Amino acid sequence: MIIKLKKDVSEDEILEIKSILEENKMIVVENESKSEKVIGVIGNTKIIDIDKIKGYSGVIDVCDVKEPYKRAGRKFHPENTIVKIDENICIGDNKIIVIAGPCSVENEEQIIEVAQKVKSSGASLLRGGAFKPRTSPYAFQGLKYEGLELLKKAKEKTGLKIVTELMSTDDIERFEKDVDIIQIGARNMQNFDLLKKVGKLNKPILLKRGIASTIEEWLMAAEYIMSEGNENIILCERGIRTYENATRNTLDLSAIPMIKKLSHLPVIVDPSHAAGIDWMVEPLSKAAIACGADGLIIEVHNNPQKALCDGKQSITPEAFDKLMNDLELVAKAVGRNI
Amino acid sequence: MIIKLKKDVSEDEILEIKSILEENKMIVVENESKSEKVIGVIGNTKIIDIDKIKGYSGVIDVCDVKEPYKRAGRKFHPENTIVKIDENICIGDNKIIVIAGPCSVENEEQIIEVAQKVKSSGASLLRGGAFKPRTSPYAFQGLKYEGLELLKKAKEKTGLKIVTELMSTDDIERFEKDVDIIQIGARNMQNFDLLKKVGKLNKPILLKRGIASTIEEWLMAAEYIMSEGNENIILCERGIRTYENATRNTLDLSAIPMIKKLSHLPVIVDPSHAAGIDWMVEPLSKAAIACGADGLIIEVHNNPQKALCDGKQSITPEAFDKLMNDLELVAKAVGRNI
Amino acid sequence: MIIKLKKDVSEDEILEIKSILEENKMIVVENESKSEKVIGVIGNTKIIDIDKIKGYSGVIDVCDVKEPYKRAGRKFHPENTIVKIDENICIGDNKIIVIAGPCSVENEEQIIEVAQKVKSSGASLLRGGAFKPRTSPYAFQGLKYEGLELLKKAKEKTGLKIVTELMSTDDIERFEKDVDIIQIGARNMQNFDLLKKVGKLNKPILLKRGIASTIEEWLMAAEYIMSEGNENIILCERGIRTYENATRNTLDLSAIPMIKKLSHLPVIVDPSHAAGIDWMVEPLSKAAIACGADGLIIEVHNNPQKALCDGKQSITPEAFDKLMNDLELVAKAVGRNI
Amino acid sequence: MIIKLKKDVSEDEILEIKSILEENKMIVVENESKSEKVIGVIGNTKIIDIDKIKGYSGVIDVCDVKEPYKRAGRKFHPENTIVKIDENICIGDNKIIVIAGPCSVENEEQIIEVAQKVKSSGASLLRGGAFKPRTSPYAFQGLKYEGLELLKKAKEKTGLKIVTELMSTDDIERFEKDVDIIQIGARNMQNFDLLKKVGKLNKPILLKRGIASTIEEWLMAAEYIMSEGNENIILCERGIRTYENATRNTLDLSAIPMIKKLSHLPVIVDPSHAAGIDWMVEPLSKAAIACGADGLIIEVHNNPQKALCDGKQSITPEAFDKLMNDLELVAKAVGRNI
Repeated sequence: MIIKLKKDVSEDEILEIKSILEENKMIVVENESKSEKVIGVIGNTKIIDIDKIKGYSGVIDVCDVKEPYKRAGRKFHPENTIVKIDENICIGDNKIIVIAGPCSVENEEQIIEVAQKVKSSGASLLRGGAFKPRTSPYAFQGLKYEGLELLKKAKEKTGLKIVTELMSTDDIERFEKDVDIIQIGARNMQNFDLLKKVGKLNKPILLKRGIASTIEEWLMAAEYIMSEGNENIILCERGIRTYENATRNTLDLSAIPMIKKLSHLPVIVDPSHAAGIDWMVEPLSKAAIACGADGLIIEVHNNPQKALCDGKQSITPEAFDKLMNDLELVAKAVGRNI
Repeated sequence: MIIKLKKDVSEDEILEIKSILEENKMIVVENESKSEKVIGVIGNTKIIDIDKIKGYSGVIDVCDVKEPYKRAGRKFHPENTIVKIDENICIGDNKIIVIAGPCSVENEEQIIEVAQKVKSSGASLLRGGAFKPRTSPYAFQGLKYEGLELLKKAKEKTGLKIVTELMSTDDIERFEKDVDIIQIGARNMQNFDLLKKVGKLNKPILLKRGIASTIEEWLMAAEYIMSEGNENIILCERGIRTYENATRNTLDLSAIPMIKKLSHLPVIVDPSHAAGIDWMVEPLSKAAIACGADGLIIEVHNNPQKALCDGKQSITPEAFDKLMNDLELVAKAVGRNI
Repeated sequence: MIIKLKKDVSEDEILEIKSILEENKMIVVENESKSEKVIGVIGNTKIIDIDKIKGYSGVIDVCDVKEPYKRAGRKFHPENTIVKIDENICIGDNKIIVIAGPCSVENEEQIIEVAQKVKSSGASLLRGGAFKPRTSPYAFQGLKYEGLELLKKAKEKTGLKIVTELMSTDDIERFEKDVDIIQIGARNMQNFDLLKKVGKLNKPILLKRGIASTIEEWLMAAEYIMSEGNENIILCERGIRTYENATRNTLDLSAIPMIKKLSHLPVIVDPSHAAGIDWMVEPLSKAAIACGADGLIIEVHNNPQKALCDGKQSITPEAFDKLMNDLELVAKAVGRNI
Repeated sequence: MIIKLKKDVSEDEILEIKSILEENKMIVVENESKSEKVIGVIGNTKIIDIDKIKGYSGVIDVCDVKEPYKRAGRKFHPENTIVKIDENICIGDNKIIVIAGPCSVENEEQIIEVAQKVKSSGASLLRGGAFKPRTSPYAFQGLKYEGLELLKKAKEKTGLKIVTELMSTDDIERFEKDVDIIQIGARNMQNFDLLKKVGKLNKPILLKRGIASTIEEWLMAAEYIMSEGNENIILCERGIRTYENATRNTLDLSAIPMIKKLSHLPVIVDPSHAAGIDWMVEPLSKAAIACGADGLIIEVHNNPQKALCDGKQSITPEAFDKLMNDLELVAKAVGRNI
């Protein structure tokens, strides 16, 4: 349920309304748009005396929210959320943010070289896997803590903030300290224990869509995090599993305008994992921006053929540089910059 | 199998090579790119004496073609196919072609009004269903022959060439006479009898992707048509069936660059049927152009709320006009015009 | 809408009710169960004066039918439909019917040998493709009319009635004369022109589920046939397209009890095409019978390794013989015979 | 890689071969079938001198294992694994094991009543959710530790061993102490941190298939557990996500014979979650047994209409009792008992 209030509603009325709601054990969430204030109410709202609430002079309307997501939904939060990473980087704003880097951190030389190059081409953040979720227990699982240290070195050298995936709740404190955006991978999108725990942090979360998750389930995963207090969520579309095998997954770009309609959260696209093919990164990146994505996360490797993981989908720093130039034109065509 | 030849190969050598192939009952297809001539060979090529063919001075190389599609594949035909509709309209060229019009032809006033409006906004062709494939035998099945006559009137009034769906082999002669591009719908993509019969026409075919067809099966459907002699094929991506229900189907935009890689045929996108939602037409159209589509087919209705069919996904002429302006910017950003 | 009537309702009342419905241009379908008569009504039933109809003494109740399928639905036709092939063979009865034979008819010796063997093992009908729907136009397309003649010879020799696929409306008359059950293949399940035309025949139709059709669409395809008058339909589940590639398609056995709930039509299972693997035919056949299928259609080839088509999924006559023995036990366990 | 050895190979030879392998840092796994001993080798086997190994008199053959699963694969372990729960209950044996109980543990009366009833009908183990994975953070999340205590009381009263889902690595010690079979739910099938940690326990694990996991990914999840030392794994097919919405998920019964071919691990079926419909439990249970499942896990609730969770798919104790009788006939028909 949401209660729409006039912008100039008195503080007293708000307090009274909130006290009614809280007496009834409702969870209360306050937001506002340019034209009105919104009180979102979560709980068994059937027991609330709607007429009484409508009676307050500052109340414009009281509406049901059928969607199961509340905090993640646009009804509760009419304006776009902008996730602030630092003074210069905001995700969800007019400027499109590009995160780039290798699938896995492999060694100091590699990560620093890639970081320097993607920075000079205009990337805003550095990605790189330290802990790698691999289908096989015998495959390279990442450099782990050593990988984290190398990411920190690359950050020191380049100033690029870092994004990397958290796989175990054991590592949360370490990630909170060392990482700028914590990624929750597709396989863990419904690892509710992990979601709740990162929900207690004050740290941006990059929440990848599960490989066969509906948009509703994805927003509900965001809701799990938000219900614990952390509202700094960036959604990431990375392809869904379908019958088609020409590409590794099927990038669902319809999800971008749909998320924008249903939710206020920023949403970015991962064209590298979606298709699994290096030469597809360019057209899919352009398409992502054209249909409204707030950013991209792209795999760049200084030597794709020798990558320890996912080389087939990584592009070179040179290709990335050219891509950034091309994307600028597409961004402008849809009224944004990059 | 393909035989690559020097541009300046002698006619005699070509004739000799072809006679060897034809003696062995191979089907021979000739094409050329900027740098070389290509002889495509279909049949049990294992019986051909490759060394003998390699011995000709004009032969650069002989390569196997693993792909099951031959005429539809880029190896057989390295340059893009451009389907010429008339003096002014070519599909597959630098200019992006937009086909617009209502789901169904409903009456003279409707189809003429829509045709005039979409023309003035820049559409190149008029779409409109006369024969409608409907899941229910009790649903409106289109105005049929009367609908065809109304399309012809709209063409007379506006000069717009017409695109409409053929559902029965009984109507082929009539369609050949009256229609400018014959559409084969998603449900008939593997109606091989229909494919073979339109393959004998000299008329452009718009071949929609089946609702759960792989890209390979789609190209094989084109191959059925081409194997009968008709090479004027325009492919149309219109969304595939997945588990996701937020949109009616999942538009597979990765298919656009993939088709461009594998095939020489032009490919357009139908954002209206893919999503089934009017407000998604704009972002998906932009994305389609950004990733390389050669055109769009968009449902436009002068009164979407009262449409006899698919009103939910039709946009108004006013929205279409605005869309065409927006698309011009995106087209330019990727080096094309519209 | 359905009107439930007492068993002893007077003929006069029925005539009066029908005349009201027909005046209002409704389509009227009469059926009965053990306990009541049912008048099914198709059309814009909102214009009917329900209270007037409820006023007749023989009327028990008037109910809406939300399902889009009417004639194919169990509400219109509460008792199971039993499709009678000849004096001895009924599909949908307590006895489970097995249709067996090769994917393609290849030559006289092959089809007669297989027919004799499957007959001696207990098959009730012979299957064999004369016209083959192949993804590639260059693949073996069946012996066509010669194949039909060979099937007729096998029928003469063995007495087995024949089931084979119709692909073109051009061949309908020939099939009507020569074939005992006309198969509509998965690719043509929504070839509405073909459905309507076989709907005018008085001949059993085996309607395969489309490779990505919902159960509702499948029943609507049956409705297309039934709406033209032909109610002799046998549904056939043959696997659906999913992301899983360990089997060619995913056999959807839940569809069997679901069809039994929603429809009165008999339903059989094709384990050979579903899995595409010979050794899976046995466990999937057992499972199909255990969950209520009315029959099976199984590929049997006298020399699977040399089959011109789909050899990988064909079992030998010896394996078929053993299978029939095993299936008898499972059929008994669920109260049926085979 | 596997090395097949004669049954009467000398211990010395085995030790020599193993020492070669271990010197090369291979992981060595020993198993045996009725006719031979098998040494499974995991690692970069290209560096092993195969000819030297073939030179030992006890070696029959050395073969590559292309499958990415090793310990979970039948090549490494030719005989069926039988998971022993206690003196009387073995999963994977000739006797089919039925696990029954409510979706959620709700209160003492409920769980004890259900436990007593399902026991008297022949269930071997009691299921019941204490920690519930729910799509919404606001939905009932289970009684948690109180639920565990109630399960223990039900076990005391009835002697039924208990199966319940583990969602957080924080609870592993508690589960190890209190639970007889630890369930890993579909959403956590690729929660590799959780898999590795339960891999260190000496406790049977019920590993549900992920909602969109391939059979190969599922076996790789088992491999994660087994690679840490715990080989007591029971796989559970519970339906996969497809486009079809008539049932909640599509039960993939082909997976049962496929798992039996590829792996030695026992596999059971959950018809309740697959279809999400109470009346489908019976036909799907019969089908599961007919195609070779080693057991079933069925939701039974004493008052399905009032269940706090998933009531729509729960059957009553009376329906369960009748089902067990019916299943006995099907089990016998395929040479097993229940």
